[in-house]
Amino acid sequence: MQLAQRCQHISPFQVIQVLKQVVALEAQGKDVIRLFVGEPDFSASPAILEAATQSIARDNQGYISSTGLAPLKEKIAQRYQRWHGLNIDPARIIITPGGSAALQLAFLALVNSGDEVLLPEPGYPCNSNLLHMVDATSRRVFMDEKNAMALSMSALQYATNEKSKALLIASPSNPLGTVQSLEQWQEISAFCKKNDIALIADEIYHGLVFEGLAPTALEADDNAWVIQSFSKFYGMTGWRLGWLVVPDHAIGACERIAQNLYLSASSIAQYAALRCFDEDVEAESFAKRDELKKRRDYLMTALPKIGLNIMANPDGAFYLYLDVSPYTNDSLAWCAHVLNETGVALAPGADFGGPSPNTTARLAYTVNVERLTEAVERLNAFLNK
Amino acid sequence: MQLAQRCQHISPFQVIQVLKQVVALEAQGKDVIRLFVGEPDFSASPAILEAATQSIARDNQGYISSTGLAPLKEKIAQRYQRWHGLNIDPARIIITPGGSAALQLAFLALVNSGDEVLLPEPGYPCNSNLLHMVDATSRRVFMDEKNAMALSMSALQYATNEKSKALLIASPSNPLGTVQSLEQWQEISAFCKKNDIALIADEIYHGLVFEGLAPTALEADDNAWVIQSFSKFYGMTGWRLGWLVVPDHAIGACERIAQNLYLSASSIAQYAALRCFDEDVEAESFAKRDELKKRRDYLMTALPKIGLNIMANPDGAFYLYLDVSPYTNDSLAWCAHVLNETGVALAPGADFGGPSPNTTARLAYTVNVERLTEAVERLNAFLNK
Repeated sequence: MQLAQRCQHISPFQVIQVLKQVVALEAQGKDVIRLFVGEPDFSASPAILEAATQSIARDNQGYISSTGLAPLKEKIAQRYQRWHGLNIDPARIIITPGGSAALQLAFLALVNSGDEVLLPEPGYPCNSNLLHMVDATSRRVFMDEKNAMALSMSALQYATNEKSKALLIASPSNPLGTVQSLEQWQEISAFCKKNDIALIADEIYHGLVFEGLAPTALEADDNAWVIQSFSKFYGMTGWRLGWLVVPDHAIGACERIAQNLYLSASSIAQYAALRCFDEDVEAESFAKRDELKKRRDYLMTALPKIGLNIMANPDGAFYLYLDVSPYTNDSLAWCAHVLNETGVALAPGADFGGPSPNTTARLAYTVNVERLTEAVERLNAFLNK
Repeated sequence: MQLAQRCQHISPFQVIQVLKQVVALEAQGKDVIRLFVGEPDFSASPAILEAATQSIARDNQGYISSTGLAPLKEKIAQRYQRWHGLNIDPARIIITPGGSAALQLAFLALVNSGDEVLLPEPGYPCNSNLLHMVDATSRRVFMDEKNAMALSMSALQYATNEKSKALLIASPSNPLGTVQSLEQWQEISAFCKKNDIALIADEIYHGLVFEGLAPTALEADDNAWVIQSFSKFYGMTGWRLGWLVVPDHAIGACERIAQNLYLSASSIAQYAALRCFDEDVEAESFAKRDELKKRRDYLMTALPKIGLNIMANPDGAFYLYLDVSPYTNDSLAWCAHVLNETGVALAPGADFGGPSPNTTARLAYTVNVERLTEAVERLNAFLNK
């Protein structure tokens, strides 16, 4: 019995190799500084935990409408009003089991088998693999290395053809940390309209932005499809909760897909998430953002001093994209070597594609400044050897 | 911007119309007896709730390995040993966010765009819609009305062609409640081997079986793909947790798909579910099963007396598939009329397909015998009018 053809196209994450090595080293008693996974060291607010416990005590664990708990959709709509001055109809907000499901829902609703989706790279490795699920393919568009890894509209235009169905842009970006400005979103939206392709914005790191609030693609384009998640800003990774904002005309189709695909997102997570939008919990999340900013500021100074340059200007998320070209042209082997010698675990650029996957690495600053300082010292000693 | 073509093929559930009518009637203060949704009136055991609360207190909410929590996989493997005498390698068990995700994972791993999957009908309406997600189609195989809705091997053989990739069989069946015997599984397995198609067994109602334990397809065929869920037997619908058993050779592909599709299933749900396999919780679930048996036995006698015949012999789950042909040839309109006149909400056969969707209805006995008696009295008065 043959497996489906798509199985051959779905690439494993290189970072899994790093994880295996980390586990082996830790089992030997080595002190590993884990800077390779996209999971913040902040967990959910105690207020959210308390809300989850109350929801369990009230026995709120049955199925919920496929598009989500109505008051949760209301609160998300209110956040769009409060953060962006936008009036989004809650019916356009579809609660999903995590940002992954939101992206899958968007692809299922938009992309035919054989279509292409424009994916700026370096980017999140799941994106192109998720396209294989609908037997579509990604058209890679390299960020401009000569322009601080900005998205080049001419590169986008060059990659566009009659099969292009959508453009997916992450802001803040993983692994770059870069944020699209309102003017950039407007330019991207005009490009999409001109070429009749859908704009999908991955905004799962919204909130974790160091200067003000990142503009949402919806400010520039009311027809944008927006992927969102409770994982990063609210520290709810393992809860599996996200949402998708869709244009009016797509609500019915997305509701039907959601009914069949996952029935409903976790009830406990939805009741708990109601608490996320209260002032105190939001303030806690912003305090965590401030702590991430401190870490970024420290690393932006410390890393170039030891010979590790940063290839973009990270205004959000918790990633730095490092230029390791002076040291290697095999990022995978180099990261394994660094990990073995120093106990500092980075993610190889190979996972994120783009123009220079073999000479880059991603550092996730998911540990405190003290540990980051220790990591920098160890890397410095290694690079000076 | 056009939506993807598959959006046109995904049919809405007729039962959503019933739900809307129920909500409207209840808003008018009418007493509705809800027999139309596949959700038991039992919620999770207090021991499971306690385990969830403890997991929250211990802050166990980060990402978990995509294939699931190792001790949970172990406990599931042990249940296969205890219930069926089978030795299943835990590596073959992939924890999923609900049975829906398990089915989607199986389809993604097995079915190419353009393939066909054999679906016995009447059946669960999501199955054919989920096939549209991979741009495959269902080949409907009608159960034999002249033989208590049994699966006819000649009908199966007749439907099989060079596009056939898999056969999906639910045991216990929704909406029939019928259970496949070991001999039937063996016959089905031989058929699949002969025709080189994969056998997918939907066993999400396992445990809720009234005479002994239902045999799993794995007893007849070690290469069967088995869909499972914590929703029904453990009363954990809104928790979104299930599992998929895959053949050895498919473990790697399924792990890669899971990594991209959903990263991991809910952490809280996984830690809570560890408690499901303890003797006391299992005994509670079987006690609920006994309560369902009482309801079934009551209805099997009471319904035929008022002129509602049952079209199959339900040995499990909590459904009765009713013959309403003496009263209508439009099950949708009839269910709406019955609901309006009596406050008894049934699901129209139209949702489940099969040879007679317009003259059948599904009754879910998800309320206690007292309420069922009230429902029977109301239906009797209506049918005698």
